[in-house]
Amino acid sequence: MQGKEFFADKLPGGMKLRDVKLTIIGFGEIGRGVARVLLEKKGFIERNYGVDLDVIAICEIDGSIIDENGIDLRETLRLAEDKKLKEHKNWCSMRAPDVIKKIKSDIVLELTPSNIESGQPGLRHIKESLRRGMHVVTSNKAPLALKFSELQKIAKSNKVKLKYEATVGGALPVINLRKHALQINKIESIHGILNGTTNYILTKMAEEGVTMDVALREAQEVGIAEADPGYDIRGIDTGAKVAILANSLMDMEVSFKDIEITGIEDITPEAIELAKKHNCVIKLIGDVNRLEVSPRLIPVNHPLNVSGALNAIMIRADVAKNITIVGHGAGGIETASSLFSDILSILE
Amino acid sequence: MQGKEFFADKLPGGMKLRDVKLTIIGFGEIGRGVARVLLEKKGFIERNYGVDLDVIAICEIDGSIIDENGIDLRETLRLAEDKKLKEHKNWCSMRAPDVIKKIKSDIVLELTPSNIESGQPGLRHIKESLRRGMHVVTSNKAPLALKFSELQKIAKSNKVKLKYEATVGGALPVINLRKHALQINKIESIHGILNGTTNYILTKMAEEGVTMDVALREAQEVGIAEADPGYDIRGIDTGAKVAILANSLMDMEVSFKDIEITGIEDITPEAIELAKKHNCVIKLIGDVNRLEVSPRLIPVNHPLNVSGALNAIMIRADVAKNITIVGHGAGGIETASSLFSDILSILE
Repeated sequence: MQGKEFFADKLPGGMKLRDVKLTIIGFGEIGRGVARVLLEKKGFIERNYGVDLDVIAICEIDGSIIDENGIDLRETLRLAEDKKLKEHKNWCSMRAPDVIKKIKSDIVLELTPSNIESGQPGLRHIKESLRRGMHVVTSNKAPLALKFSELQKIAKSNKVKLKYEATVGGALPVINLRKHALQINKIESIHGILNGTTNYILTKMAEEGVTMDVALREAQEVGIAEADPGYDIRGIDTGAKVAILANSLMDMEVSFKDIEITGIEDITPEAIELAKKHNCVIKLIGDVNRLEVSPRLIPVNHPLNVSGALNAIMIRADVAKNITIVGHGAGGIETASSLFSDILSILE
Repeated sequence: MQGKEFFADKLPGGMKLRDVKLTIIGFGEIGRGVARVLLEKKGFIERNYGVDLDVIAICEIDGSIIDENGIDLRETLRLAEDKKLKEHKNWCSMRAPDVIKKIKSDIVLELTPSNIESGQPGLRHIKESLRRGMHVVTSNKAPLALKFSELQKIAKSNKVKLKYEATVGGALPVINLRKHALQINKIESIHGILNGTTNYILTKMAEEGVTMDVALREAQEVGIAEADPGYDIRGIDTGAKVAILANSLMDMEVSFKDIEITGIEDITPEAIELAKKHNCVIKLIGDVNRLEVSPRLIPVNHPLNVSGALNAIMIRADVAKNITIVGHGAGGIETASSLFSDILSILE
């Protein structure tokens, strides 16, 4: 059951499928999540959007797989799991910047890890793709946190779209929620838990009384930490998301460096115990209005008190009032939900 | 700050505004909420949608205000507050069925109270409006809970839209969330607190140890009860919403009579005390998969444990996994957020 009612209009009986080509840059957890979801949903996209969606290039750090007829994703995923991507029959040494120049896709998925100092290599990939008339859908926070309005201008002047739902809150629809459900509203404030790793750590510390080191190790074992866990712990990841939300939903023109950030490094089990005595928990909160990231006391019965690796974002709007959305802020498959939301909105 | 980035493309410099005419049927709390929001946001809609949105008819039970040049909403709201609508200079005895026949609008807002037995008069209003080629946006649950697929067919065959975000969860965007943010997902389950009045009552009983009668009286005093509070208490209102969600988001073809309903009539302070001892609360839960409404035990740290008159809906999707959305399920202004979401999506 695939939401027939919504899509019935788009089923053009007997119509020829439109070819849409994707380039995937970065084939880590998120890139592979996209490939897995596309494998499963290809028929759904054909039926409901009249589109034959093929991946024609997958770029990794040391080379790429290129097949203009559509890469066999099942085989590619199998090789990637075995860390044998180079054995793929279409593997070549061409790297992302050259692929962007030489291989014409309709949509480029920029899914490389965030480097908050330089924004690279994502920033270069996104700019060059937009300039070459390709839409970009990204989960990479750093380029948008650093150069939001510049990137939007490049997209606009090249008449293509730059979509970034996956940069904030993983599977949580926050950008598209504002765009398609809260149109009449002025957004008055946004704050919330924007990082699953720190929430997981703080929850573990509160529930099991363990130290941060023990909780962090567990977070790494279950695979929810970012490439550099320091980005999570020090609040960098949350800060990047605050910058993106400020630009995209509150019309501020700010960059990552404008966000005042305090991480959770100094939160002790004693502090958490003390919070508990006051019927509160400690959560790392990103506050968009104040351009601030800091650990805060949250009452236990507050909607932002969500446990484990969940994210929770509270939006105050002038007409709808408070709306809180809670869900999985990370995970390759979950994040693919947001990436496909952007891809499909481009296809419409 | 009005979400400039989203709407910038739609600002056609110097372009003539397109006239769009609304008929409002039902000028109770929700109808007046729409009028208030429109008064405040008219300029915003002009700038961002290039549309001059005018209300040309407002129908009440005993007559209508009609002005094809656009009704003065400020004056009308003032008279409505004083219960002197009949003193309006454009008041006439024509009632909604005749207005639908004689006054050609672009969009009809059907905002009359729900009658779950017959669906009337909303059902008649909606059918006739659709047949006359007018889009319909409604907050009226009964017609959709009773005749969902029939109404959709009438809309489709007349090439107009029937939109109903406001029927479920007030300001909460659940229908549009699915449509614009979870496109790639199969919805696996939906359940939640869909009625603010019963949640308010159960919260009061749990927090203050009062009886249901006392809690209900308070709910009526703060003005969050439906016209007939029995609809809330007996789970009828929640059942109607379950039927709408089943049809719209899970492709079931069911009617209100297919929902098995147990209300909160028999919940005693003792039962609530007992739940508390097990670290749980009692909430009236609508379960779409099971087509069931019933009081259930919810752990205190569960995302559905929201207090006061809040609604909370948990959607399980195959790709995004669990997403919970929490917010105001009632209120004239808040519900207008959803009605305008539908209106503006028609204008796009």
